[in-house]
Amino acid sequence: MSIRNTTSLSRRALLGMIGRVAGGAAMYQAMSALGFAESSPYAGPIELEGAPKGTSILILGAGVAGLVAALELRDAGYQVKVLEYNQRAGGRAWTIRGGDTYTELGGASQHCEFEPGLYLNPGPWRIPFHHHGILHYARRLKVPLEPFMQVNYNAYVHSRSAFGGAPQRFRHVQSDYQGHVAELLSKAVKQRGLDAEVSQEDQEKLLESLRKWGALNSDYRYARGAESSDRRGFEVYPGGGLMPRPEFSTPLAPHELLGSGVWRHISEGNEYEHHSPIFQPVGGMDQIAQAIYREVAPLVQFDAKVTKIDQDDRGVTVSYLDREHPQAVREVRADWCICTIPLSILSQIDITVGPAMHAAIEALPYDAAVKIGLQFKRRFWEQDEQIFGGITYTDLPIEMVSYPSTGYGSTGKGVLLGAYIWGVNAYEFTSMSPAQRIAAALKYGAQIHSQYETEFENGVAVGWHRVPWTNGCYGLWTDDLRDKHYDNLCQIDGRIALTGEHASRIPAWQEGAVLSALDAITRLHALIRAKA
Amino acid sequence: MSIRNTTSLSRRALLGMIGRVAGGAAMYQAMSALGFAESSPYAGPIELEGAPKGTSILILGAGVAGLVAALELRDAGYQVKVLEYNQRAGGRAWTIRGGDTYTELGGASQHCEFEPGLYLNPGPWRIPFHHHGILHYARRLKVPLEPFMQVNYNAYVHSRSAFGGAPQRFRHVQSDYQGHVAELLSKAVKQRGLDAEVSQEDQEKLLESLRKWGALNSDYRYARGAESSDRRGFEVYPGGGLMPRPEFSTPLAPHELLGSGVWRHISEGNEYEHHSPIFQPVGGMDQIAQAIYREVAPLVQFDAKVTKIDQDDRGVTVSYLDREHPQAVREVRADWCICTIPLSILSQIDITVGPAMHAAIEALPYDAAVKIGLQFKRRFWEQDEQIFGGITYTDLPIEMVSYPSTGYGSTGKGVLLGAYIWGVNAYEFTSMSPAQRIAAALKYGAQIHSQYETEFENGVAVGWHRVPWTNGCYGLWTDDLRDKHYDNLCQIDGRIALTGEHASRIPAWQEGAVLSALDAITRLHALIRAKA
Repeated sequence: MSIRNTTSLSRRALLGMIGRVAGGAAMYQAMSALGFAESSPYAGPIELEGAPKGTSILILGAGVAGLVAALELRDAGYQVKVLEYNQRAGGRAWTIRGGDTYTELGGASQHCEFEPGLYLNPGPWRIPFHHHGILHYARRLKVPLEPFMQVNYNAYVHSRSAFGGAPQRFRHVQSDYQGHVAELLSKAVKQRGLDAEVSQEDQEKLLESLRKWGALNSDYRYARGAESSDRRGFEVYPGGGLMPRPEFSTPLAPHELLGSGVWRHISEGNEYEHHSPIFQPVGGMDQIAQAIYREVAPLVQFDAKVTKIDQDDRGVTVSYLDREHPQAVREVRADWCICTIPLSILSQIDITVGPAMHAAIEALPYDAAVKIGLQFKRRFWEQDEQIFGGITYTDLPIEMVSYPSTGYGSTGKGVLLGAYIWGVNAYEFTSMSPAQRIAAALKYGAQIHSQYETEFENGVAVGWHRVPWTNGCYGLWTDDLRDKHYDNLCQIDGRIALTGEHASRIPAWQEGAVLSALDAITRLHALIRAKA
Repeated sequence: MSIRNTTSLSRRALLGMIGRVAGGAAMYQAMSALGFAESSPYAGPIELEGAPKGTSILILGAGVAGLVAALELRDAGYQVKVLEYNQRAGGRAWTIRGGDTYTELGGASQHCEFEPGLYLNPGPWRIPFHHHGILHYARRLKVPLEPFMQVNYNAYVHSRSAFGGAPQRFRHVQSDYQGHVAELLSKAVKQRGLDAEVSQEDQEKLLESLRKWGALNSDYRYARGAESSDRRGFEVYPGGGLMPRPEFSTPLAPHELLGSGVWRHISEGNEYEHHSPIFQPVGGMDQIAQAIYREVAPLVQFDAKVTKIDQDDRGVTVSYLDREHPQAVREVRADWCICTIPLSILSQIDITVGPAMHAAIEALPYDAAVKIGLQFKRRFWEQDEQIFGGITYTDLPIEMVSYPSTGYGSTGKGVLLGAYIWGVNAYEFTSMSPAQRIAAALKYGAQIHSQYETEFENGVAVGWHRVPWTNGCYGLWTDDLRDKHYDNLCQIDGRIALTGEHASRIPAWQEGAVLSALDAITRLHALIRAKA
């Protein structure tokens, strides 16, 4: 990965030269040979060498960033200690299973009653194929992964105010929108409406491509027939022997489709963070963090609530309360400190850093989000509706329903994600009691799946603004906030470096935490060696 | 599933009435309550009752159709016997693994040297979620399934004559084609080119939807920037801490993209037989057929080459050669016969049926297809190019390269599908020796993956026109052939019923074989009971 040591510009210049001299294919092969055809910020396994003997680093927080930092700094030869507020590692890489108890701010406690093997991931739940950092740790620690089903053509898109409130199959809306767009553009081309924009030669190719891509018939129309049914599916599907003859299905009318607004959901899988393939750890999203934790378990002290972070020229002193002995403030001292505490919490803690970092810590709001897991007696979404994994989108306040991407076809109970809520609705749901949240998710979800009424058993609801150790879901950066504060947040201040998804450009993803940690410890290591 | 006993018309009439009286949501719920919102030709597990005692049925062929017929007729109380040409069950539901030997027409023999766990499915390799029949048997017999990765945004689309021969990432071509189409249609709308087609109100909604769906910027342009990079990916991806700042990527130019022809591959996953989710059995496509075979193994006689099928008013007499005793023609007699032999073979066998079925048997050509499995020392497509499953499409004669949808991230050897060839190219590849086919697949594939040259170990190549027991891949129906012959092929002729994918409207898929078998045995059972 020597390419990582050159600038983007010189790398591009090199490749451009190869392209000019030897053609595109040669350039591509050169790019491949360089490891990544695009410049991933993940530069391969980190290699820290020459840690000064006896140097100690205190890590605050045993979430993904803290665990990665602990593992790599320990491997590099540092004396590492980790303080963690919770009684478990992983932070937001968290999976709730049957038997778990969770108490939120305000005191409401939930005891999860899911069947063994079923779970809710309140935080991250999917790993894009290009999140090379977190995937590296999954591979290194042999955490089995399975595909996460992002796009399911047989799931629904739903609007209360469209199609009489009836959910529509994703495949109908996706096929019909694409088909109608292709037909309209074909008409515009044929009516010479784009002569100023597109050459005659390209117009012919455009028409040819629209016909194929939009499933248009020989008249360049998207209409009931073989072409459209080969996309959206049939009214009566082709069968065997003398079963009833197939019947084409009828596309949704353009006017109704445009007015419905449900087209807004069909490009979700086209977004680069949702591109297939996406993965999830088998058994729950906490599995990667737990695997890292097992590597560094002796270094981690649970039940430690940090109350003060002080530094001077020679080291860092952290005060904390031990949950088992809450009377006495304890202190731990180290040469350096990696602090992964979410800024929503850190802003409430006394920390000795300069005004720029202080301002950054205080500037960042945290987004609201709510996730609700619902256990049902059976996997009715598979058995009754042939929905295996994937996501139903709705304009109801629950925003989506997601079906488990594992255990397809199993005959026992099932847990689905009954709500994944952002923004205003998330604040409203967070203000409810857990039981009210679940009742609301059931009430809304039953408008999509009437089986909710008879099959529901129990649920768990996490509103992130009531999570005691984060007070929110993730750092809600804007371009303006980044311009003002991001660099100041990420610069090492004396002997303290901040890491976590909030100190990354990939907020809310584990990859942000991993890359933030790798970047910070790389810079910290260089600084320590320079000072040694 | 009582709905199956009504006609499509009366079912639609019923639902239409519900819709008119109670609105779309109520209609939808009624449809859901009826089991399938669309009329699947699979009507749930078959129930055959009242088989006349002692009635015998001889089944010719132990492929999927024959196995399903054997299982269900046996369960119904019939005396069932199955004759199979090969030394194994499954027919085209066939998986080649290390240690297997396969000898094709012409005498060339291949001994597969794949590592344990690696395989090639020369025939079917994926199961759409709506193939309820074959999925029923997988579930009933507890055959574990895993997702088949149809669409991989990080795989390639490739044309020798475009982009200097350099493969393009699917996500670039998909995002850019969609974006350019959205931009062009936006322009046409804004230039009033579609006023006659689209109302003013719908034009506003269309523009709003195009901007979202096509990732257009605030000027309704698809251009380098945040919107397009959120689809196609970044030139420098967002990272953590103070890693290099992200850089947007630059879309492919419309003229070059249109001229490339690679847009023809981006709608593959939009076709209803390729809609996500798709499944494959864990361990190879033969697993479902093998599971059915285990249920009926005592009924199956291998190594039996049928030479004559004769019937009279009272029964059917089948002559066959036993491979171990090829001198003597043997005979077996039964009351009824289900013949699943491919028409490409059956047309060469003396069979006592009427002229209409005879004409049908002789009319159907079989399509050519070639599949080539290549074993490599390592999964370079994952390690070097971040391609986990899915398909690369090319205009090279190999047509595609498909990466295994299992064992992601494993460090050992890997087998990929190095060619899946149809039509003219398939005839050319079939005419080669197996070694020549593999050499050709390597030569062509190396234009996409230069690692072929150093990592290749061994391969297996199946040209279906040289498969001794099919002489082709599947029945190549045209509309004209169906009009003339399909019903005659599927009607029971005296005491003989023909089944298999060739007697279905789902050619080349296992579902066609299953539904054909279920339909034929349902009709045969009714006929037998009527005669009893």
